[in-house]
Amino acid sequence: MSDNNKIGTYKFVAEPFHVDFTGRLTLGVLGNHLLNCAGFHATDRGFGIAALNEDNYTWVLSRLAIELDEMPYQYEEFSIQTWVENVYRLFTDRNFALIDKEGRKTGYARSVWAMISMNTRKPADLLTLHDGGIMDYICDEPCPIGKPSRIKITSTEPVTSLIAKYSDIDINGHVNSIRYIEHILDLFPMEMYREKRIRRFEMAYVTESHYGDELNFFMDNAGNDMYDVEVKKNGGEVVCRSKVIFTKK
Amino acid sequence: MSDNNKIGTYKFVAEPFHVDFTGRLTLGVLGNHLLNCAGFHATDRGFGIAALNEDNYTWVLSRLAIELDEMPYQYEEFSIQTWVENVYRLFTDRNFALIDKEGRKTGYARSVWAMISMNTRKPADLLTLHDGGIMDYICDEPCPIGKPSRIKITSTEPVTSLIAKYSDIDINGHVNSIRYIEHILDLFPMEMYREKRIRRFEMAYVTESHYGDELNFFMDNAGNDMYDVEVKKNGGEVVCRSKVIFTKK
Repeated sequence: MSDNNKIGTYKFVAEPFHVDFTGRLTLGVLGNHLLNCAGFHATDRGFGIAALNEDNYTWVLSRLAIELDEMPYQYEEFSIQTWVENVYRLFTDRNFALIDKEGRKTGYARSVWAMISMNTRKPADLLTLHDGGIMDYICDEPCPIGKPSRIKITSTEPVTSLIAKYSDIDINGHVNSIRYIEHILDLFPMEMYREKRIRRFEMAYVTESHYGDELNFFMDNAGNDMYDVEVKKNGGEVVCRSKVIFTKK
Repeated sequence: MSDNNKIGTYKFVAEPFHVDFTGRLTLGVLGNHLLNCAGFHATDRGFGIAALNEDNYTWVLSRLAIELDEMPYQYEEFSIQTWVENVYRLFTDRNFALIDKEGRKTGYARSVWAMISMNTRKPADLLTLHDGGIMDYICDEPCPIGKPSRIKITSTEPVTSLIAKYSDIDINGHVNSIRYIEHILDLFPMEMYREKRIRRFEMAYVTESHYGDELNFFMDNAGNDMYDVEVKKNGGEVVCRSKVIFTKK
């Protein structure tokens, strides 16, 4: 199979309500587009949610790392490419490139997914699924950013807490993956985004949270414009961890 | 000019992170699409933001009323039509229809816009703008829902308060119009959305709020599944008012 069909390319435009006060696309919206592209790419190739749902399987996002030189400005067109880098028994690595209106690659992302049975919540064996059909799409397109790292938080006092509300919840009854990104970015003051921009953002999704859960946000300033964040629910279990690295504009 | 060119039609699909826990498109996302369609329609006809910005004018949304029989379900395609109903000296009425995947009209919306100078903050005269060119697009397509009503709140104790954060702020430095919708919908418990759906939603945008403002939400239960909401900033000035009408599913 040619690499041409292995890589999916999808076009977007930076809509007015999808940019922040600096006029640049928000990271939450970019994350939403990345996850949609993952869905389009998998569906077009026969291993999307709809095909899997027949067998009661679903894709679950485990890790996400995004690294950016620049975000699209309001009304600018851009596109996202995505491809499968690796398939293991329990996980698959899917990568992305962000391409600006002039065709330059201005960012990359890495994601790690598992597939679970919605009946048993147990992971599926990706190597045997659909007779291993997903492996036909493995592609050696370069993705020159680091893999998601291990994030460790030492703070024991939350910087803020909130209760998960109606707008946070997705069709599965969980706080949606994008909302965590937005809540984490809201931990930083406006001045931070005025002087700096996010160069790298990582998320490790650990467990689900639900409507009415109290989400507690813990943050370590790791120095060098690097911040580690942990979200726990109801004073206990870890929901997700994130690393946010800023850089001067 | 034929009505064909007066009405703009735009296609969408209900994305996974744009539906709520019932699998239906959220009202905030629908609102975002409506405002985008208004932008596309105006731009294509020479009276969009970009054309106006040269003269330092911008469109300001004053009122929005949405009435729905049904919302698109996750992954369903739908389209939105929009047209100009009336042009007055200081305001213009723009209407919308929501069309489901089978071509049925399952909802309508009405909006009222003013145009202001970004230098003086004073309103422009729409009847003389671009030699009155906008009036060429007035269209008598029916919009069988009531106009935005006058909303009056009597409660003096806020049901909740929040501080406007990074994710709330748009490119103009204001809390964005869609975020108010989301914050207002978050006033209602999950059980409400489980048993009922929103039949009609109105917003009157009164003044802007900014990063760091405390937003106080006041709510009257007006009976018959009807709720009136007022948002004030910093304990004083009214920012917006909303009426939310639920109905049994």
